[in-house]
Amino acid sequence: MSIITLTTDFGDLYPASMKARILSIDPTASIVDIIHSIPPADILSGAFAIYSTAHLFPDGTVHVGVVDPGVGTDRRAIVIEVAGQYLVGPDNGLLIPAARRMGDFTTYQITNMEPLEEISRTFHGRDIFAPIGAHLSAGMSIEDIGKVIDDPVEPDNWKVVAEEDRISGTVLYIDHFGNIITSIPQQIARGFAGHGEMIQVIGNTMPFVGTYADVEQGDLLALVASHGFLEISVNRGNAAEMLGVKGHPEVEVRKE
Amino acid sequence: MSIITLTTDFGDLYPASMKARILSIDPTASIVDIIHSIPPADILSGAFAIYSTAHLFPDGTVHVGVVDPGVGTDRRAIVIEVAGQYLVGPDNGLLIPAARRMGDFTTYQITNMEPLEEISRTFHGRDIFAPIGAHLSAGMSIEDIGKVIDDPVEPDNWKVVAEEDRISGTVLYIDHFGNIITSIPQQIARGFAGHGEMIQVIGNTMPFVGTYADVEQGDLLALVASHGFLEISVNRGNAAEMLGVKGHPEVEVRKE
Amino acid sequence: MSIITLTTDFGDLYPASMKARILSIDPTASIVDIIHSIPPADILSGAFAIYSTAHLFPDGTVHVGVVDPGVGTDRRAIVIEVAGQYLVGPDNGLLIPAARRMGDFTTYQITNMEPLEEISRTFHGRDIFAPIGAHLSAGMSIEDIGKVIDDPVEPDNWKVVAEEDRISGTVLYIDHFGNIITSIPQQIARGFAGHGEMIQVIGNTMPFVGTYADVEQGDLLALVASHGFLEISVNRGNAAEMLGVKGHPEVEVRKE
Repeated sequence: MSIITLTTDFGDLYPASMKARILSIDPTASIVDIIHSIPPADILSGAFAIYSTAHLFPDGTVHVGVVDPGVGTDRRAIVIEVAGQYLVGPDNGLLIPAARRMGDFTTYQITNMEPLEEISRTFHGRDIFAPIGAHLSAGMSIEDIGKVIDDPVEPDNWKVVAEEDRISGTVLYIDHFGNIITSIPQQIARGFAGHGEMIQVIGNTMPFVGTYADVEQGDLLALVASHGFLEISVNRGNAAEMLGVKGHPEVEVRKE
Repeated sequence: MSIITLTTDFGDLYPASMKARILSIDPTASIVDIIHSIPPADILSGAFAIYSTAHLFPDGTVHVGVVDPGVGTDRRAIVIEVAGQYLVGPDNGLLIPAARRMGDFTTYQITNMEPLEEISRTFHGRDIFAPIGAHLSAGMSIEDIGKVIDDPVEPDNWKVVAEEDRISGTVLYIDHFGNIITSIPQQIARGFAGHGEMIQVIGNTMPFVGTYADVEQGDLLALVASHGFLEISVNRGNAAEMLGVKGHPEVEVRKE
Repeated sequence: MSIITLTTDFGDLYPASMKARILSIDPTASIVDIIHSIPPADILSGAFAIYSTAHLFPDGTVHVGVVDPGVGTDRRAIVIEVAGQYLVGPDNGLLIPAARRMGDFTTYQITNMEPLEEISRTFHGRDIFAPIGAHLSAGMSIEDIGKVIDDPVEPDNWKVVAEEDRISGTVLYIDHFGNIITSIPQQIARGFAGHGEMIQVIGNTMPFVGTYADVEQGDLLALVASHGFLEISVNRGNAAEMLGVKGHPEVEVRKE
């Protein structure tokens, strides 16, 4: 029984069609939803979702990710093999951060459409990515599905630059609590500021602390949260709303 | 291990009670959520959800659908047997489009309440439909559950009329992206307009194309999407918001 | 194959990390989501969610509940053993109403962190509660995990006082339909008012009836709903919006 995870911007109804196709091909698959509420066409948020969860799953897991504004165009469909797991989805950068985190990876373009049924031009999640994931889960060889490529598309905007007196990065993800997750990894953040030190981020001054309850209710804070990145939060509040942050703007961290 | 799907307007908490009952009766059932965010009491949206997914599931699947504004009144509870699958729910039209799509079907009124525990007047999803679905999944015979009826209730408003210079139909569903899905099937739509032809729908002129990216970002388009119906969309935008469409109004398609 | 349920205020992305940890420890676990949209840090709503569902699950089920504003502080982590099931979560009252409903219970503080991997200060759902649940599901003895305590924290605000001419209680939960669920149990409600009798609640007069369709569309009603508590509703409408009720205010029921 292998695990197949799903990460999409499909919202509430369309993931079920992917599950139907998967269970028709591999009835023993155990399907786990990562998330289906990625903002429509927001590849970077989808990439963060897969990046922050895929490596936690056991060997043999197949991750299907579909945030795919280019569906029906000539963008490639790919499978990445890494650390005993597979990542399946469009070639638009969605899968690359997770793959890189998990180790040395090999990218295949899906070229063999024979195992698939009729393919619509608007729903490759159901017609290509889910069935390919299920065939891999059911034991089909990756070599029978595609050919190796060496130029997968990188995600835009996932970057960080550390200087002596400032770090610049981007907002990768705004979570359900309104926490603002940046692209600044813990090693860089912890090298820059000590525990309790005040820093300036997004026009505000806040302490760099260890957990939410380290500041008063309603106060801003910065911390390295469980995903390993610098996060801007409000204790029991919504930082993105308070600071008016949307999407993936650049962020700069300075010492006070 | 048989599959049981759930389609409801119950939102976030109540589906879990249905799952508890199912797993108490058939611990090996594999439960798949179709959708639980159907607008409250919106039978037509629920009918579209089941219609667009049920036929994709493998033989032996049991589909439990509960959008049931008449709960606790004398509306009948039914099971439909079709194409090796079962559909279980209230007799209010919710299950009929899916059943008709899947083939010749037989409708049973649920008359044997003996396999059930105490039945509340407000939550038949938990007390009747989920347990009946689980008993069917666990091997109980449909003949032991009900008696055949030949007058199941049809859904209101699922209709289409094609004339030479116009097609009229209704809005069946507005999806997560704001795409407006009409009741006009692909054969009629494709017989009416050629690829790239301009058509008039909902007071706007737009091209009839093959996929979203065939028009500029932000532009209106009409296409036959993966569900097989004419859909009005905006490339990377929300057509229902742009056009102010809610619920299930009539739509008329004309040539420009 | 044992069942592990999840109840959290984590929203859309973070539950997947809990599932990854669970399936890494117990690949045969069958994971059921109770709810992940509890309002952030709203312990009482979380307590109601677990209370209203846990007892419906079969023997051997492990319920993991995480609504945990005190994460990273010195609040205790606990496991409750009751009626052949386990409840796992923070010691803040979240699990107590469900435990009390299910029978005599024993509370253990989680003291053995050895079976766990690195523990972050912000995500004990992933790092402590989910893995402990999975270890219990996989057969680890509760005695190997913790030590019995006799002073678990009670939930605030879950109370009811019945007098001859009035009952006072609190709002426990506002559901997806806007139904206002109070802490007044059915025996007290039914002893207070007969079927069809008019009562006064939250500044309004409404009949005490048996199901939603017993009043006209758009009208207020009170009933004992499927969860066994007095509920204030609007037939096909949203009572919480109509009455402006949010959170957990006190409610008083009087005869007209």
